[in-house]
Amino acid sequence: MNRIDDLGNGYKIIQNPDSFCFGTDSVLLSDFAVAKYNQVVVDLCSGNGIIPILLCAKTRAEHITGIEIQKSSFDLAVQSIELNNLQDRVSFINDDLKNALNHFKSGSVDVITCNPPYMLAGSGFENNCDSKTIARHEVMVTIDDIASISSKLLKFGGKIYMVHRCDRLCDVLCALRKYNLEPKRLQMIHPHVNDAPNLFLVEALSGGNPSLKLEKPVYMYKE
Amino acid sequence: MNRIDDLGNGYKIIQNPDSFCFGTDSVLLSDFAVAKYNQVVVDLCSGNGIIPILLCAKTRAEHITGIEIQKSSFDLAVQSIELNNLQDRVSFINDDLKNALNHFKSGSVDVITCNPPYMLAGSGFENNCDSKTIARHEVMVTIDDIASISSKLLKFGGKIYMVHRCDRLCDVLCALRKYNLEPKRLQMIHPHVNDAPNLFLVEALSGGNPSLKLEKPVYMYKE
Repeated sequence: MNRIDDLGNGYKIIQNPDSFCFGTDSVLLSDFAVAKYNQVVVDLCSGNGIIPILLCAKTRAEHITGIEIQKSSFDLAVQSIELNNLQDRVSFINDDLKNALNHFKSGSVDVITCNPPYMLAGSGFENNCDSKTIARHEVMVTIDDIASISSKLLKFGGKIYMVHRCDRLCDVLCALRKYNLEPKRLQMIHPHVNDAPNLFLVEALSGGNPSLKLEKPVYMYKE
Repeated sequence: MNRIDDLGNGYKIIQNPDSFCFGTDSVLLSDFAVAKYNQVVVDLCSGNGIIPILLCAKTRAEHITGIEIQKSSFDLAVQSIELNNLQDRVSFINDDLKNALNHFKSGSVDVITCNPPYMLAGSGFENNCDSKTIARHEVMVTIDDIASISSKLLKFGGKIYMVHRCDRLCDVLCALRKYNLEPKRLQMIHPHVNDAPNLFLVEALSGGNPSLKLEKPVYMYKE
């Protein structure tokens, strides 16, 4: 059963709680990402389109395209864009992100955002519902796939922003560097000030030189 | 002019303030490292021997060997060991760590610790004094050298503990993984609770499977 949630920034989103609802990680990623006027933005693993909608509220990016492999999520994303009258600024493609070069020229994208499935295929508690499994586990796409296609899509000097779980920090940093996407900014997200961080945000620069800046941490909840 | 500092754990260390004195990073690394009874420990970039001495106080490792390329630091380390009557537990080798296989059999070491030079050769403010430059800059040894030789020295299942500056996090994690030393534990060190971390501690496991555990952060100073 679909519902409409007010995002508090002038926009709304249609979600299906039986399938997948956006989480704090998407909000953190949208806050962390930088997209400027006239830039072409692609959101990979776009789900129900939460990140393109949040980016519309904070940026003047020329166009934001979400790519989502699951038809049910894609359909909700398209409905949300119509509900918000964002057809001029946002569109969605229902395809495997590994086919992104069928939709974009190589080296044509300024900014990529991605909130990918966090868990390895076959690990953790795999949800029975297929759509949840695909959204949460690396069934259809791996970190390596994301870094590889992003490296092809981005202009030299383009940036990718990703959120992921800390247990995959090494996997993400190494995959980005492998494809010449040099991690430049890293921010750790802690539930509380005395908790270990559980999520991180990373910005990587296509063709950048090695040198990582750690940002001030985010503590989600007060003690 | 050399001086003797009391470490407050029953041991003392001889240091030359004109050359190089140990810092908080060495204390943090010694606290973070785990060495058990009967284990063979090697400390790379051992300087004046602070880490072997601190490890003596907290572990019952069978033997700890420090390798230090600079004769002046090596001489101080040997004097400190005599001063503390630790000749049975600690020894030092005055050699380039890249020659470590002349002193140890391949796959014979349980634990490696390393507080390496932090800065790239030619970067930052290079100290005029040669010994400080060698201790602080990657003039004689790189992260890649350290990971490469550690991978050869360590047993399968052996561990390396390293401290480094956060701007080199990606370099360290990628170099460790490149040589099959899988990062397993990572701890960020913040000056204050609302500062970005400036140092990190990492434990990597020879032959380990990917999966990184983030530890609770360390905040060095109260607000």
